[in-house]
Amino acid sequence: MVKAPRQLDHIGIAVHSIREHCSFYEDILGLSLLKVETIPTQKVKVAFFQIGSSKIELVEPQDASSPVAKFLEKRGEGIHHIALSVSDIDQRLQDIRKTGIKTIQDHYIEGADGARTAFLHPSSTGRVLYEFIEKNDNNASVQKEDKYD
Amino acid sequence: MVKAPRQLDHIGIAVHSIREHCSFYEDILGLSLLKVETIPTQKVKVAFFQIGSSKIELVEPQDASSPVAKFLEKRGEGIHHIALSVSDIDQRLQDIRKTGIKTIQDHYIEGADGARTAFLHPSSTGRVLYEFIEKNDNNASVQKEDKYD
Repeated sequence: MVKAPRQLDHIGIAVHSIREHCSFYEDILGLSLLKVETIPTQKVKVAFFQIGSSKIELVEPQDASSPVAKFLEKRGEGIHHIALSVSDIDQRLQDIRKTGIKTIQDHYIEGADGARTAFLHPSSTGRVLYEFIEKNDNNASVQKEDKYD
Repeated sequence: MVKAPRQLDHIGIAVHSIREHCSFYEDILGLSLLKVETIPTQKVKVAFFQIGSSKIELVEPQDASSPVAKFLEKRGEGIHHIALSVSDIDQRLQDIRKTGIKTIQDHYIEGADGARTAFLHPSSTGRVLYEFIEKNDNNASVQKEDKYD
């Protein structure tokens, strides 16, 4: 029996420019911007908007070699990935590979807020890019740090 | 000040066949299938999997004229829409149109579980299909009714 992910942590949306879309999320939808952060391992800048116990994450590439830059080139702006909160991420990756599901990383990499993160390969998941994300106690709650500028 | 949506109600994923993908969601991810339902207004069958306070919804077209059939034809399987829980949906649609955002429906239509639902036009939202969904008290909790078969 596989342990269910605890919650839908966030949905990632690929954008050319975070700044360009912030007004839609803040002023039109009424969501709160939590923080903006650069993630060197993915060569992206991200902005999180809280919605209930989940978040919407805008993802802007910082470099043409970023996987998100390639996504934008191929498909344009739009929904990019779904992140599920899990525990014991490396064990979970190992277990899931045994079922024949491909993962993009063998082991977790560091994501936003220092969380442990890894992606399942869309070829194994009905063309949905799923991210597993495991947070430490000290990064479980996202804090407001810097605004986009 | 716009009232924030209460929560991320669900993410819709377009699939050719719900049956084909259920094993991934149940056996591999460990999610619980809540129910399967046909939505005549959208000409689709949907399956809901609970994850925390949100849900993942697999959407299978029942007819070639369904908007989801057209999506599948154009883009293939993958993430289709993001549904946000709102209150007073018709007022919200009216207010949002005043800001220049296009909506697909002028007024709500009936969605899964008899909820009131309407979509924003992706041309106004950075190519993301957002759904507003308003539930009655008597359909706030999804009940397990029928399994897929």
